[in-house]
Amino acid sequence: MLREFLKPRPSPFTKDNNAGGGFVGDLDRVRLHTAIYESDKVTGLKAPKAVMDALQEDEDATFPEWAIRSGPRETIFFDPAQVTAAIVTSDGLCPGTNDVVQNIVFTLTDYGVAEDQILGIKYGLSGFYTKGAKPVTLTRHAVDGIHLKGGTMLGTSRGGVNVEEVVRRIDLWGVNMLYIVGGNGGNHAAAAITEELERQGVICTVATVPKSIDNDILLIDKCFGFDTAVAEAHRALLAAKVEAMSGRRGIGLVKLMGRNCGFIAMQASLASGIVDICLIPEMGPVHSPKLLAHIKAILDKKGHCVVCVAEGVGQEEKCAGIDKQGYAILKDIGVFLRDTLKGHFKDQADIKYIDPSYLIRATAPTPSDRIYCKVLGQGAVHASFAAYTGFSVSMLKTHFVLLPTRYLNKARRCCFG
Amino acid sequence: MLREFLKPRPSPFTKDNNAGGGFVGDLDRVRLHTAIYESDKVTGLKAPKAVMDALQEDEDATFPEWAIRSGPRETIFFDPAQVTAAIVTSDGLCPGTNDVVQNIVFTLTDYGVAEDQILGIKYGLSGFYTKGAKPVTLTRHAVDGIHLKGGTMLGTSRGGVNVEEVVRRIDLWGVNMLYIVGGNGGNHAAAAITEELERQGVICTVATVPKSIDNDILLIDKCFGFDTAVAEAHRALLAAKVEAMSGRRGIGLVKLMGRNCGFIAMQASLASGIVDICLIPEMGPVHSPKLLAHIKAILDKKGHCVVCVAEGVGQEEKCAGIDKQGYAILKDIGVFLRDTLKGHFKDQADIKYIDPSYLIRATAPTPSDRIYCKVLGQGAVHASFAAYTGFSVSMLKTHFVLLPTRYLNKARRCCFG
Amino acid sequence: MLREFLKPRPSPFTKDNNAGGGFVGDLDRVRLHTAIYESDKVTGLKAPKAVMDALQEDEDATFPEWAIRSGPRETIFFDPAQVTAAIVTSDGLCPGTNDVVQNIVFTLTDYGVAEDQILGIKYGLSGFYTKGAKPVTLTRHAVDGIHLKGGTMLGTSRGGVNVEEVVRRIDLWGVNMLYIVGGNGGNHAAAAITEELERQGVICTVATVPKSIDNDILLIDKCFGFDTAVAEAHRALLAAKVEAMSGRRGIGLVKLMGRNCGFIAMQASLASGIVDICLIPEMGPVHSPKLLAHIKAILDKKGHCVVCVAEGVGQEEKCAGIDKQGYAILKDIGVFLRDTLKGHFKDQADIKYIDPSYLIRATAPTPSDRIYCKVLGQGAVHASFAAYTGFSVSMLKTHFVLLPTRYLNKARRCCFG
Amino acid sequence: MLREFLKPRPSPFTKDNNAGGGFVGDLDRVRLHTAIYESDKVTGLKAPKAVMDALQEDEDATFPEWAIRSGPRETIFFDPAQVTAAIVTSDGLCPGTNDVVQNIVFTLTDYGVAEDQILGIKYGLSGFYTKGAKPVTLTRHAVDGIHLKGGTMLGTSRGGVNVEEVVRRIDLWGVNMLYIVGGNGGNHAAAAITEELERQGVICTVATVPKSIDNDILLIDKCFGFDTAVAEAHRALLAAKVEAMSGRRGIGLVKLMGRNCGFIAMQASLASGIVDICLIPEMGPVHSPKLLAHIKAILDKKGHCVVCVAEGVGQEEKCAGIDKQGYAILKDIGVFLRDTLKGHFKDQADIKYIDPSYLIRATAPTPSDRIYCKVLGQGAVHASFAAYTGFSVSMLKTHFVLLPTRYLNKARRCCFG
Repeated sequence: MLREFLKPRPSPFTKDNNAGGGFVGDLDRVRLHTAIYESDKVTGLKAPKAVMDALQEDEDATFPEWAIRSGPRETIFFDPAQVTAAIVTSDGLCPGTNDVVQNIVFTLTDYGVAEDQILGIKYGLSGFYTKGAKPVTLTRHAVDGIHLKGGTMLGTSRGGVNVEEVVRRIDLWGVNMLYIVGGNGGNHAAAAITEELERQGVICTVATVPKSIDNDILLIDKCFGFDTAVAEAHRALLAAKVEAMSGRRGIGLVKLMGRNCGFIAMQASLASGIVDICLIPEMGPVHSPKLLAHIKAILDKKGHCVVCVAEGVGQEEKCAGIDKQGYAILKDIGVFLRDTLKGHFKDQADIKYIDPSYLIRATAPTPSDRIYCKVLGQGAVHASFAAYTGFSVSMLKTHFVLLPTRYLNKARRCCFG
Repeated sequence: MLREFLKPRPSPFTKDNNAGGGFVGDLDRVRLHTAIYESDKVTGLKAPKAVMDALQEDEDATFPEWAIRSGPRETIFFDPAQVTAAIVTSDGLCPGTNDVVQNIVFTLTDYGVAEDQILGIKYGLSGFYTKGAKPVTLTRHAVDGIHLKGGTMLGTSRGGVNVEEVVRRIDLWGVNMLYIVGGNGGNHAAAAITEELERQGVICTVATVPKSIDNDILLIDKCFGFDTAVAEAHRALLAAKVEAMSGRRGIGLVKLMGRNCGFIAMQASLASGIVDICLIPEMGPVHSPKLLAHIKAILDKKGHCVVCVAEGVGQEEKCAGIDKQGYAILKDIGVFLRDTLKGHFKDQADIKYIDPSYLIRATAPTPSDRIYCKVLGQGAVHASFAAYTGFSVSMLKTHFVLLPTRYLNKARRCCFG
Repeated sequence: MLREFLKPRPSPFTKDNNAGGGFVGDLDRVRLHTAIYESDKVTGLKAPKAVMDALQEDEDATFPEWAIRSGPRETIFFDPAQVTAAIVTSDGLCPGTNDVVQNIVFTLTDYGVAEDQILGIKYGLSGFYTKGAKPVTLTRHAVDGIHLKGGTMLGTSRGGVNVEEVVRRIDLWGVNMLYIVGGNGGNHAAAAITEELERQGVICTVATVPKSIDNDILLIDKCFGFDTAVAEAHRALLAAKVEAMSGRRGIGLVKLMGRNCGFIAMQASLASGIVDICLIPEMGPVHSPKLLAHIKAILDKKGHCVVCVAEGVGQEEKCAGIDKQGYAILKDIGVFLRDTLKGHFKDQADIKYIDPSYLIRATAPTPSDRIYCKVLGQGAVHASFAAYTGFSVSMLKTHFVLLPTRYLNKARRCCFG
Repeated sequence: MLREFLKPRPSPFTKDNNAGGGFVGDLDRVRLHTAIYESDKVTGLKAPKAVMDALQEDEDATFPEWAIRSGPRETIFFDPAQVTAAIVTSDGLCPGTNDVVQNIVFTLTDYGVAEDQILGIKYGLSGFYTKGAKPVTLTRHAVDGIHLKGGTMLGTSRGGVNVEEVVRRIDLWGVNMLYIVGGNGGNHAAAAITEELERQGVICTVATVPKSIDNDILLIDKCFGFDTAVAEAHRALLAAKVEAMSGRRGIGLVKLMGRNCGFIAMQASLASGIVDICLIPEMGPVHSPKLLAHIKAILDKKGHCVVCVAEGVGQEEKCAGIDKQGYAILKDIGVFLRDTLKGHFKDQADIKYIDPSYLIRATAPTPSDRIYCKVLGQGAVHASFAAYTGFSVSMLKTHFVLLPTRYLNKARRCCFG
């Protein structure tokens, strides 16, 4: 919260009580946990403690029970005429990113921020300082219609960020609201930038709209874009079923994204309703003989079998290297399984392999994701005007809330977490 | 709960701890309300008290704070070999109904219920006793692939149900599990059947999977099929925008379903991102001169205007009659507004009107709805085996829960409720 | 042909033999008719002579057997550096219009026409002279991505065109290539403008890319956008089937566009594969008692019936008036049939009516239409550079050809024509 | 033609002149070639002579100028009550196969063939004689709704067929109409079976509905299912563009089907409107340094580049082996190019690779393909009743025709053929 450094004033929306919709109170709260369990037996798998384990190593990790509610405040702490905002998108693509950006722009201008005071930073946070890079001006016209398009109109990048250089430009350009629509890298940078701004005494809010196509961000039930990714991914599964059924004995194999977790694989399998075996990283190492025997049993019974595997499966031993952004290069479990199946079943079954890869994320968002993205974008601006900083906007148990970004960074969510 | 009349036994899934997923405890609970509010100011509209008002008239209406969690139980109270189940779908179509039916069948047979003991009642609850009507047998093969289709393979009907006749057949046929996938009519019938079964001492669980294309069922955040309806509905809005923009001054007008509430209209407007004016019943009577002036102002500014109206708008005075199922026949607000706009703007604007009507509900479910429907169908069977009765399965704040069906019937949900 | 007034020069594409694709010869020809018939019995209906009848009244109407092939010429007759082009879209929307415009722009600039010499006339031909209207400049950037969008970025209008005013601006602004993407109105205006230009000795080619959502343009097998319209329209039929099947006795009724012909109704019915009765204007007046009896027979046999009706059906007696563009205001045959069915069947069948109206034309083009539109747009530019004028580009028996626009205007095509 | 062995009789459709639509005459003809060319310069590429070369080696190869028109005949040569039909689908999947099968069944029963006399042979032609394989009975009910599904309800297989065994069963089972919906393998088998039937004097018509996802069947403009494959394939291209544009310098690479020809790659590239480089087998060997230089030039100009490659590109030297059906195992040009690009551009560009593989063919047909399939299926039955044999039904210059199957087998079509 930067309120101590700022002057309160009424929201421009007070005149008609926010078009009749009223305002959110600063003391409004949403519970993080809404269920109580008779026992722990419900999740008998070995993974579930992972998140809490990770947090317990960090004494600062106790999660409070309540989150702050997102939404417009009656009192704001910035004069819209004095706001210069910067918007940046970073990390891998997620459907809906453009929609979030559009609604940040729309809400800023609704507050009265001048269109030429909304800067779009190109190709990620490094766009603040990369030689030759120049921000674009994000007018309402510039973002018109982008909500129906995949990708990000601002471009993106992954990898290390020079936090000091970012803060230097924020200070230099007079930016007092920073909006980061980012993944793991962007969220960590957001936390570091917030700290550095505070250290240097630069008054600038830092709002994050976290994104992860894998859906593995702590506390967040469903990241924006995930609905779209599942919808697209499940098409590959339906196609695999059609191929598998076309012959006397057929196996359809589909690899889907999910580096550390199986959300896409699991949900797409559920959506398709036709998957026989779904392999996810949370289940631990795959026991090949058991898997092959299980597939054979299904083939014997039904004549065909559909297997869905998340890319993070089978990466236990040692990864294939580290890429230049510092991420582990995964072995290709899809190709590995395809070859294993071909080697094992030989003439006894026809193997059809589908890897939709980027198709599932480089696509236009579903209507459901578009609704979600709009409210996220609006929430980021409302909270910034209320002088919150270092927060992430997200949906928690159907309510929109603000969560401290540095908490979200502490661990990754997984299917049984 | 019918447990006192039944003998407990271990679930067939205990042998591998439910494939490693464990079980739900009977004392597991999910909170109905997860947010607390600083004040009441948040919803300044006149509608919000409606639901509570309706309930206060009924002294029995105090809602408990907690709902029972849905899911498989370690102890069950029916011998799968002795189960005869009947499944029925009633009231207006919702996308995903087939998927719910399929997963009831799949889960029943997973428990070990014989395929020839699963009856599909045709064309609604009256199918129990209509002369010449005969239940169909719902084998796994019979429901294969239906999850990808719109409509309901069992057929449906609306209107009054002869509860005694239904109970008579349940008793006669030895049905001990009844599954109703129904709307308002089905939910009320379910409550009445539960009571009558109890009165007569017939041991038969009554499980409801409530559906409403309007999304107006109390406590339920999002009915199954609603995601699909919004997705389909928003296409009409995008088309209206294209038409409105094609001329120098154009108005695109779209009427969408929503008899008493504006959920579809609101969410589809949000999803489209291009609606200028959205009229919903919760806002009360429309002030025509104000509306026309507002449209004119938008036309003057942008050259085109897109208006979305829910069918329940403007029905204040007196309805156009009562149909044979007892529902008010609504006046056609879409045609009325179209003619009003044509009369008012004459040569000054081109009016393009779209009424997608049944297109939004008679369609195949989105992947997201298919995931939802699967868990609902499974939950209905798990709870029936645990001897719960008179319950509805639904999602509450992202958790799947059991709610007493008669509570859900007490009032209808609306956008500001 | 304006060649006598122009200087030939080699195409800029000659240097690499048009990227290896070669050129079209001016003497290349495509046959109009590729089938010969043993007898006339094949079309026993009363409509088929209509087109020829219309033409026989006009002594000038003898169609030649061959059409000129469309495509790039080795010799061109305009210096790209001296070209000023104007592009205009007129009449009702068709999917793919933007794609045609985009490819006219792309091909013009490929030839070397300066981007600021490509004018987009706004809101139809009247945009040439409407007070306050100003052409937009169509750069490659301005048309980037528009091929994926419905509608027309240039706007459109219907109704009378002041040909002299158009020619005056063409002369004044130095336009020497005019591109009209238009319907019936635009095609007639194109012919009139061509004549007037010739009369005044203004050197300007007039290229037309004819469009008709009804697909009723003479000689053209399939107008661009028609594939999309059929795809969209058939969704309403599938929904009507689902609704009709949901009850014991149900009728699904769908009205589709088609003022004078039943192409959309017929093709959408075929595509859906589930229509029981398809009514089109070409079949003449509908005999109500026979229709009702036929529907009843189908209901008795199958329990449900799907009826598709083209909007032009039942307009024999007298139309409901003339609109301000001079088109007959059709009676609403859909609403008429719906009410007739409700009145006749009363409680004996449930009637579900769907009128997708503008949904079928205000949508983004199918991939197939996008391929088609690209080649049409390119052909228009190639022929203009070859100094053809007064022509329409279209596909004839799978070949792209140039046809004299004034021929196309002589009559309208119908299903049995 | 088997007429000499059969007795003519009137079609059951004569009573109402085929519902007013009349009949096709046996002497009706459709031209194979509808265009004449000024010169040969139009196709300056090296491939175009390939087809004719192949044919010239075969003295029997002179193509007649006219094809027989497809459609219902007034006189038929089979008593519907005496018909036993067998339907078989073979070779790789194509969207629409189910629709063809459905309409063969529908048209047979329309003629009056008994439902239990329509046999579906499972898993290709070997299903006639594979031990344990049993034909299914194809009633109207059995094929209801299958037109909306991908794959083939009959199953399929590739590879060698024992013609004598097939003919033995045809004779044994009294099959007098055989329908093969097949690819290259099926078409060759069809020709061989026709010959063997004639040799043995077994009276059975052999109708083929040729299919090829690659669209490489001689004389046929567009195979059924190709429209769907292009639509699906172009989605991968649009995704590749989004990915390529997301970074400062990005290359999107997509591999699409097309063993010997580039139809899918070319048409999908056109449909997408965003491909920079499209590589197809017809262009001959790819010159890597030139390709890399061209990509670099595009990157320098636009910052991103989208490359589409058909799987048959770069297979000149020696293939990777022969599979058990006798087809060459292609080297994976997609993976090869991806690695080449990564090796060449290193840090200078981000490479995103998409291989949609079976996604493009294991999908439900587009509405356009469904229209096409219906008429193909109907035509196969009409011609069989007219005692034609050894023919393929297909569309030629927008007319439906019968072509001798053994001609189609003589060579494969390619993009410049």
